Amino acid sequence: MAKVTVDLVLYAAYVIPVIPCGVVLYDATVVIDKTRIVALLSRDEAQSRFVGVEEQYLGHHILLPGLINLHTHAPMTLFRGLGDDKALHDWLAEDIWPVEKEFVGREFVKAGMTHAVAEMIRSGTTCFNNMYFFPNEICSVLERTGMRGAVGQGIMDMASPYGSGPDDFLSKAEPNLKKYVRGCHDLITVTMAPHSPYTVGEHTLLKVDALVKKYDARIHIHLHETEAECNDSEQLNRASMCCHKSDQKLRPLANFKRLGLLSDRLICAHMTQLTDEEIDDIAHAGAHVVHCPTSNLKLASGIARVTEMLRRGVNVTLGTDGAASNNSLDMFGEMKLAAILAKAESQQSTSVSAAEALQMATLNGAKALGLEQELGSIEVGKRADIIAIECDSVEMAPMYNPVSHVVYVAGREHVSDVWINGKQVLRKRQLTTVDEVLIKKEVCEWGERICNYHNALGK
Amino acid sequence: MAKVTVDLVLYAAYVIPVIPCGVVLYDATVVIDKTRIVALLSRDEAQSRFVGVEEQYLGHHILLPGLINLHTHAPMTLFRGLGDDKALHDWLAEDIWPVEKEFVGREFVKAGMTHAVAEMIRSGTTCFNNMYFFPNEICSVLERTGMRGAVGQGIMDMASPYGSGPDDFLSKAEPNLKKYVRGCHDLITVTMAPHSPYTVGEHTLLKVDALVKKYDARIHIHLHETEAECNDSEQLNRASMCCHKSDQKLRPLANFKRLGLLSDRLICAHMTQLTDEEIDDIAHAGAHVVHCPTSNLKLASGIARVTEMLRRGVNVTLGTDGAASNNSLDMFGEMKLAAILAKAESQQSTSVSAAEALQMATLNGAKALGLEQELGSIEVGKRADIIAIECDSVEMAPMYNPVSHVVYVAGREHVSDVWINGKQVLRKRQLTTVDEVLIKKEVCEWGERICNYHNALGK
Repeated sequence: MAKVTVDLVLYAAYVIPVIPCGVVLYDATVVIDKTRIVALLSRDEAQSRFVGVEEQYLGHHILLPGLINLHTHAPMTLFRGLGDDKALHDWLAEDIWPVEKEFVGREFVKAGMTHAVAEMIRSGTTCFNNMYFFPNEICSVLERTGMRGAVGQGIMDMASPYGSGPDDFLSKAEPNLKKYVRGCHDLITVTMAPHSPYTVGEHTLLKVDALVKKYDARIHIHLHETEAECNDSEQLNRASMCCHKSDQKLRPLANFKRLGLLSDRLICAHMTQLTDEEIDDIAHAGAHVVHCPTSNLKLASGIARVTEMLRRGVNVTLGTDGAASNNSLDMFGEMKLAAILAKAESQQSTSVSAAEALQMATLNGAKALGLEQELGSIEVGKRADIIAIECDSVEMAPMYNPVSHVVYVAGREHVSDVWINGKQVLRKRQLTTVDEVLIKKEVCEWGERICNYHNALGK
Repeated sequence: MAKVTVDLVLYAAYVIPVIPCGVVLYDATVVIDKTRIVALLSRDEAQSRFVGVEEQYLGHHILLPGLINLHTHAPMTLFRGLGDDKALHDWLAEDIWPVEKEFVGREFVKAGMTHAVAEMIRSGTTCFNNMYFFPNEICSVLERTGMRGAVGQGIMDMASPYGSGPDDFLSKAEPNLKKYVRGCHDLITVTMAPHSPYTVGEHTLLKVDALVKKYDARIHIHLHETEAECNDSEQLNRASMCCHKSDQKLRPLANFKRLGLLSDRLICAHMTQLTDEEIDDIAHAGAHVVHCPTSNLKLASGIARVTEMLRRGVNVTLGTDGAASNNSLDMFGEMKLAAILAKAESQQSTSVSAAEALQMATLNGAKALGLEQELGSIEVGKRADIIAIECDSVEMAPMYNPVSHVVYVAGREHVSDVWINGKQVLRKRQLTTVDEVLIKKEVCEWGERICNYHNALGK
């Protein structure tokens, strides 16, 4: 039988396909043609059936689906570590808001986004769900670097450097929703990203949802991040532009339910404050939760009830939040923390296994974006978003269970190679689509300007 | 004025001396002669006063005191990831105890300890406080590799592969206590390491304390690790060999206080279960606590009240625990987790600043070991235990505050160079005293044997 010629054949010591959950294939092969996985099989079978234009032998490596970061503000890498260990409001008022007002614009977003792409690829993230402004600049960076992303169209009820207010944001968003309808572009989808219920009123939220329905998109929003947000909700509901007459005190999620916003279109970041009933509501609606454990601990927001959410059928995904409050875009850190924090929170060391944490960081993220037919596992027909973890270091030895090692032992530094949409974007730790020297120089220059301005503020 | 010739001059972009807390010296120089730091000064001053036999220019680096891991079972790296996500008792009974019984011996400890030294040095740890058996083998490894350690003499009331019971352990420990009295050896000190109050009765504990007093040493013990341990304490107190007649239910710490064991000689690992009064007791006694956040979360032991301990004056240090329950010996992970977990636990984002977390991982550890005149900061007269963090990577840019970056951004992989006792043991990520290829080969062989045995157990 003649062999089939394909673009790329990856022979690896271990493959963790994520589906089925927890399974490890030993001495396995992933066959890729153009942008997709065309076969997953044993080495012998692969050698007898396929010839790759390129073939790689990854003898000490685990192949995984690329990690999907479901909540970040990517260009904020330029504010990494700008004020820590402060009360949330002081940090925002004294550090973040003033520098955002001064610096955030097209050039800032272009540099920050390129920087974030470099950091994400180097740490094994192949897709991210973003919330920020200047989406056109972000899309340009993704096209140029071959990075996959869901580009959130930032919406607030107040002005920002990107627009004059909600109507302006909405009118700027619609062309992108139309251009990047799911499935239309190899790398980019678009979400609507209203900031939160306390910065976006019901009137705007309903308009957002109408657009999302029209274009079969998603809403990406901060929700139930802190106890204060939930406690303050009633007042904000009343001040909103919608005709909500009830005197009943509604928590944000209940208000979303009342407005018809709670559906499988909704991706809720944080969700540290949830009752059992609220968890059931989310599960029944098919809405998605982004657990951001590092950010939630660092900002003292609370600890999300992940074990209970999973038990009640919620689709829980993982996110880093922005590098300003993490201070990294490192999904390996989030996987490990998600797995161990759930054990403490539930007081059960059996909670959130390594395999479940890995699924949260891959397949569950794909589901939340409505891309589970395309991403999130190594399966025939899916996009070739794949990462290789090098297992030959002192820190990784010995290895009894590769799934456990990916979550509890490996760090971002063990990511040796990354493919997105079939294209290799990291080769032996070297970025192939981002000029690393140039972006570091640019980031350094931005850092100096931001630092000087920030120092002057404090005086 | 003639320049003074010294062994080593390190010019660095940043030096964080740890004392004073939170301070960063820019463009500073550390001057080392033989085993000690002889000057810390500006580059210009250094150039005018000193000539180094060796001089290094670390233009993109932060110099820090080496990290001190205050609680680990180092040779257990060979069991890294052997059974995860299980209930504690199942994990011990089904995984750890059977393989320990089968494999732990002189050769195992020699290989595991060498492996752990390689991992610790590569991740910036220059001193560790160990609890395991076969201390003579451990001391040999430390002498050979130039690693610094406090070698705990493991004590239990039952037999182990190392000895027949408490009297055997005690008689084996005394020669080491005598040989390695603090200050007698360049690298090694010795602690007594009774496992816990539930495996070591009062009779043995009092003998341990007598030895510790005689040789001015320390006791290193697991204490208040879990709620169950505290609840079960009464029964164990009664079953002990000591003549405790009271019917009063005593928690382990109260029992230690009654026995005169609660003093500045005591290093208590974990301490996730503490009342305000217990915290005050520890502070007044000058006893030391080892916070092991990763292990405590992963085993669902609880969350230590670090903010309250620090507020009430307890000396809190950091530890990884063994690699079997972490699953790494990575103190960078512990620093970040300690800082962010304390914020969630205390519901205050101002709790445990980066500078405090760094002090826990350095100076506080030195204090607990009674070595604060020798270790834990970059100060003139102290031992030259120093690490360099490379700041030129994508993930580390931009950098507004080096102290924040060490804790919230840097990973073990950014440790480029390590000196212990004035000797360079890591040079541009290469180990100089451990044959990395050889130890990885040995670990791989141990791993295969352990894996085969473990698999057979499950059948």
